[in-house]
Amino acid sequence: MLGGLRRRLASDSIPRQRIPQMTARTWTVAALVALSGGLALAQARGGKVLTKPLVLLSQGSFFVGGEKKTMPAPPGGRGGFGAGEITTNQMYVQYQVPERGDRHLPVVMVHGCCLSSKTWETTPDGRMGWDEYFVRRDRPVYLADQVARARSGFDPTVFNAVRAGTAPPSQLPNIIAASHQVAWSVFRFGPTYGTPFPDGQFPIEAVDELYKQMIPDLNAQLPSPNPTWRNMAALAVRLKGAILMGHSESGFFPQQAALLDPSGIRGLISIEMPCPELTAAQIASLATIPTLVMFGDHLDDVRDSGPANWAASLTGCEAYVRRVKEAGGDAELMYLPKMGIKGNSHMLMQDRNNLQLADLILGWIDTHVESVTRGARGRS
Amino acid sequence: MLGGLRRRLASDSIPRQRIPQMTARTWTVAALVALSGGLALAQARGGKVLTKPLVLLSQGSFFVGGEKKTMPAPPGGRGGFGAGEITTNQMYVQYQVPERGDRHLPVVMVHGCCLSSKTWETTPDGRMGWDEYFVRRDRPVYLADQVARARSGFDPTVFNAVRAGTAPPSQLPNIIAASHQVAWSVFRFGPTYGTPFPDGQFPIEAVDELYKQMIPDLNAQLPSPNPTWRNMAALAVRLKGAILMGHSESGFFPQQAALLDPSGIRGLISIEMPCPELTAAQIASLATIPTLVMFGDHLDDVRDSGPANWAASLTGCEAYVRRVKEAGGDAELMYLPKMGIKGNSHMLMQDRNNLQLADLILGWIDTHVESVTRGARGRS
Repeated sequence: MLGGLRRRLASDSIPRQRIPQMTARTWTVAALVALSGGLALAQARGGKVLTKPLVLLSQGSFFVGGEKKTMPAPPGGRGGFGAGEITTNQMYVQYQVPERGDRHLPVVMVHGCCLSSKTWETTPDGRMGWDEYFVRRDRPVYLADQVARARSGFDPTVFNAVRAGTAPPSQLPNIIAASHQVAWSVFRFGPTYGTPFPDGQFPIEAVDELYKQMIPDLNAQLPSPNPTWRNMAALAVRLKGAILMGHSESGFFPQQAALLDPSGIRGLISIEMPCPELTAAQIASLATIPTLVMFGDHLDDVRDSGPANWAASLTGCEAYVRRVKEAGGDAELMYLPKMGIKGNSHMLMQDRNNLQLADLILGWIDTHVESVTRGARGRS
Repeated sequence: MLGGLRRRLASDSIPRQRIPQMTARTWTVAALVALSGGLALAQARGGKVLTKPLVLLSQGSFFVGGEKKTMPAPPGGRGGFGAGEITTNQMYVQYQVPERGDRHLPVVMVHGCCLSSKTWETTPDGRMGWDEYFVRRDRPVYLADQVARARSGFDPTVFNAVRAGTAPPSQLPNIIAASHQVAWSVFRFGPTYGTPFPDGQFPIEAVDELYKQMIPDLNAQLPSPNPTWRNMAALAVRLKGAILMGHSESGFFPQQAALLDPSGIRGLISIEMPCPELTAAQIASLATIPTLVMFGDHLDDVRDSGPANWAASLTGCEAYVRRVKEAGGDAELMYLPKMGIKGNSHMLMQDRNNLQLADLILGWIDTHVESVTRGARGRS
């Protein structure tokens, strides 16, 4: 077995015949990406970071948080499903630890509105997502489905109560369901629905695959504060230190988690979100943790941007970053077009240059988080 | 890099310090399992199958199926979320292909009622699930979230229509929410709630972690036939041949998929489910594909078994297997207590002897599916 593996690695020939078609395409596209946006990286690493076999020390899944609550019996007992307890507010987490994961802090990725952890995985056009890329760059990666979403489940009690007539329809939560049209404008794929930006980085030919990722958002049913924030903070503690990353709806969740309990949180990464007004005390608290904010392109170029106003979000986050710095914190805002990186959509982690952007984030982690905390983490 | 990996593999020393606590426990428990139930296997493989680094050729996720439908605007346009198209009936699939995955058929695992693909992953007490174990036994593994569940999303239209008053509450689907009490009895953890079977294989000390996996089941909103069946058949075609495995609610889904399109399906594995009445033509069709059915223990030992009647399910499946055999098919029913394997719950893939049961399935695949189709699949 080990001999066979060594021969495989030595000859570096990966048999492809049993890899599904989509995956074969992944390799090809990933290689092309490595040859364009990530050329320097690819050369430095001998072009193998994306294509060599992936070696994991461990992987798995678990839950953080969750409370018991009593669920009334449905009318008539409905086939034996009587009253009883259920668990709600738990957060599902899936992780992978690479072979050299002991050298780096874990990165926790939390998706945005109307999406699941699928956000970070294989892109709609079949390229490698940030989840695997970060693992291949030696980071333990933890993907969390927000509470009330996807594998974290949601609380069905009120739905069945309305169905049974024991609660009025007005008690149903406002389920956010983003149509293709809303996604096109909020995610900034083009100026009007069906017309992409000529320089757009989103793989628009595969937009139908993105639409399949978009699932109902039941956050309106959650208590306050959002249990996902508490669970993210608890996960960071459990990992004995972690970097939290959010996107869009969850873009400020790392900060919200840190305001509840900063003890496990070593870095805050926020991708494209509104930055709320904070008190001086809150800013002072957040200023103890290195912060990165990233925004893409075309913030003001969508004709009817629906519920989003990204230009205003950028302005708000510029003010937030300025305040953190004034409070003595290490905060950076990467506004990509200003850095010469054009055409990025709201779905930065799925754009054609997604690995180039990942490299920016990894570089920021190395210089702003790990170079600072390395001593404290007691690595040998 | 490759040199480092070779040294790592050669010395077989896995640094543990950065592996999270739960995982460290996984290794320990897994090693204990290997030393008890799977002793012969562990000896044969030098005890390394569970603990050596996991080498993957590829991994990722994608969707199968999905159709567009028009969603009416919510009242008042609700913050820019107007009318538009959404995608429904898509099935989320997550996969891993191990380094020697080209030697074996892919295995597609589909979870049961009120659960997600979490079913097959890390067990509630932190041991290795079937997903990773099958990969470590050289099988490409595909986990599918059923349509209308978890990362596959669901159709929110009717919920928002009832909330808006444009549809009556009676149009809401019956969301199945299994309470802890229902799970305890249906999954056969003990004769009455809170009292486990003395010989029970389920890790009952971690039952709260199982309850967190239990999420609302919206299958009642699905069209007929269930789109998951069609998507499973399509996935098998896309993979150019696959073995389908279902459990409980989805236990007969492999057969339902095969009745729609058997062309990609090489094996049918059904874990603990009711077997429906079939016509002679249906039996004849299914008899062309090797079939394995598995049932655990204590089928008739739960005082109030709620909506399930496992003893009747076994009887029905015995009849099904007999009919398939009479039609010339290769079908086998593994009723575990009859084979001397005692105490298994309904959650066979999470029971303490889960890897022993996985070995039974892998052995069945090797002798009943792969030895037959090896030639036809053109492996070199």
